[in-house]
Amino acid sequence: MRLVTYATPTGARPAAVVADDRLVDLGGIAASVTEVLSSGDALDAARAAVASADVATLPRIDAATLLAPVVPGKILCLGYNYRGHVPDGVDPTANDPEYPDVFVKTPNTLAGPNDAVVIPAGATDVDYEGEVAVVIGRRTHQVSMEDALDHVGGYTILNDVSDRAWQRRQSQWALGKCSDGFAPLGPWVVTPDEAPDPQDLLVEVVREGVVTVSQSTSTTIFSVAYVIHHLSQVLTLEPGDIVSTGTPQKLPAAQDAHRPLADGDAVTVRISGLGELTTRFISAQVVATQESAA
Amino acid sequence: MRLVTYATPTGARPAAVVADDRLVDLGGIAASVTEVLSSGDALDAARAAVASADVATLPRIDAATLLAPVVPGKILCLGYNYRGHVPDGVDPTANDPEYPDVFVKTPNTLAGPNDAVVIPAGATDVDYEGEVAVVIGRRTHQVSMEDALDHVGGYTILNDVSDRAWQRRQSQWALGKCSDGFAPLGPWVVTPDEAPDPQDLLVEVVREGVVTVSQSTSTTIFSVAYVIHHLSQVLTLEPGDIVSTGTPQKLPAAQDAHRPLADGDAVTVRISGLGELTTRFISAQVVATQESAA
Repeated sequence: MRLVTYATPTGARPAAVVADDRLVDLGGIAASVTEVLSSGDALDAARAAVASADVATLPRIDAATLLAPVVPGKILCLGYNYRGHVPDGVDPTANDPEYPDVFVKTPNTLAGPNDAVVIPAGATDVDYEGEVAVVIGRRTHQVSMEDALDHVGGYTILNDVSDRAWQRRQSQWALGKCSDGFAPLGPWVVTPDEAPDPQDLLVEVVREGVVTVSQSTSTTIFSVAYVIHHLSQVLTLEPGDIVSTGTPQKLPAAQDAHRPLADGDAVTVRISGLGELTTRFISAQVVATQESAA
Repeated sequence: MRLVTYATPTGARPAAVVADDRLVDLGGIAASVTEVLSSGDALDAARAAVASADVATLPRIDAATLLAPVVPGKILCLGYNYRGHVPDGVDPTANDPEYPDVFVKTPNTLAGPNDAVVIPAGATDVDYEGEVAVVIGRRTHQVSMEDALDHVGGYTILNDVSDRAWQRRQSQWALGKCSDGFAPLGPWVVTPDEAPDPQDLLVEVVREGVVTVSQSTSTTIFSVAYVIHHLSQVLTLEPGDIVSTGTPQKLPAAQDAHRPLADGDAVTVRISGLGELTTRFISAQVVATQESAA
């Protein structure tokens, strides 16, 4: 299933997307997508609701109503996790680190698939990172690598928006990673039965019509199974938690052409089997002007 | 006021502590300490309830019922924030960094003042850090330094428990900081009107009867007002959020004598005007044995 959270006049509700753009409301089954994912009964009921739905009578998605598909208790992200290009004959694993580099994005970073990201006043070097985000389905503590994928509720897309200037100013990256709205997430969670192999996803970013990132998750250093296993040795993962698996480097031409994100820019992250997430950027000054005019 | 959260058969309730050990229940005024702190009306009503309470009829605190005084949406912590000792004639500010080094503890780290911290299996170098924790009282975005302290709801104590081995393995400290229960908090929040000047607090740690840390917040590099101001330039702080202000270094003799925390150890953090927070440590192996015997 592809699970979304959508806004209604009476609050956010979970739903499944079928036939490309039709909604099967799941609000009668569970209060949230996390609840659907974390309960076998709810998941079965949701599948039954999808199977029995009469597509012709279903409402179409209003994309403007889509919210972040889950509200994670924790957003854990990986730093360096994709190998770069190496010349023929060189071992691509030669520079692999021993452990993933893990950092945290705070809850204020969460944004929905239609939210514009506000570039904070004083942020001079805002950048995007297109990532496969794992949504945890079950409480996970000290799980083996073999069992780790059983704890995945689904996959979605996260843009790990980062202010490189703040990121460089300290040893720890928090202030470069944790501005409000710096974690657009969505548009939906694809359950593992419908998602491709998580180690065979093409992660791409498109900016102004140009593909700036294009690399397969087959080139990650740490697999999804390993990362879940690894994190769960140290802390307990809960349903709805996000584990974002890092970004590939920009393509060489995109590195050369890179400029910080500015008001009016838009970035699309697209991942095979998971869909695409387009995020617009707007400067805080423009927001302030709009608010004072309103 | 000194505000606590205590467990009752019907759930957690806020209360004020008066006359050392008596409880004025505030559950009829607000659902949580955060709600008391974030609403002027609730704060006034709480003060009135305390003023009109008949101490002789109030129940005594059962310390075993105390929970973490707030459930923070974010726990932001500072790295290096206390100046070390420098010889006479040397400028103590000479090595001050330009910006605070900020990192995040995830929600699973939160623990109450009576919770034992479980030393995870495989954690070989667990350490304590006694810290003044600021509890945010009002939504805070881009506040000036002059106004920053108006956004403080109160002060409490945090033990920033850290696994130095994990902390050293990566550039980012998350896995060294975010094991379950690694942020004991409490026992209460002291509102600013009753707390001493936050830049004149003596922070001490006692381990096995030996004072291992003893340093005043007058020696911090970044004041509470500056830190609140600074963080709020980058992200929005919400009521109940915790900003922990870093730990002093251990005293030289304690550095020499230091050994990692082990099963059965206890550490007390005491801070002038804020009280003391004693945390016991227990190994995961012992917990597992107890659970399998139960």
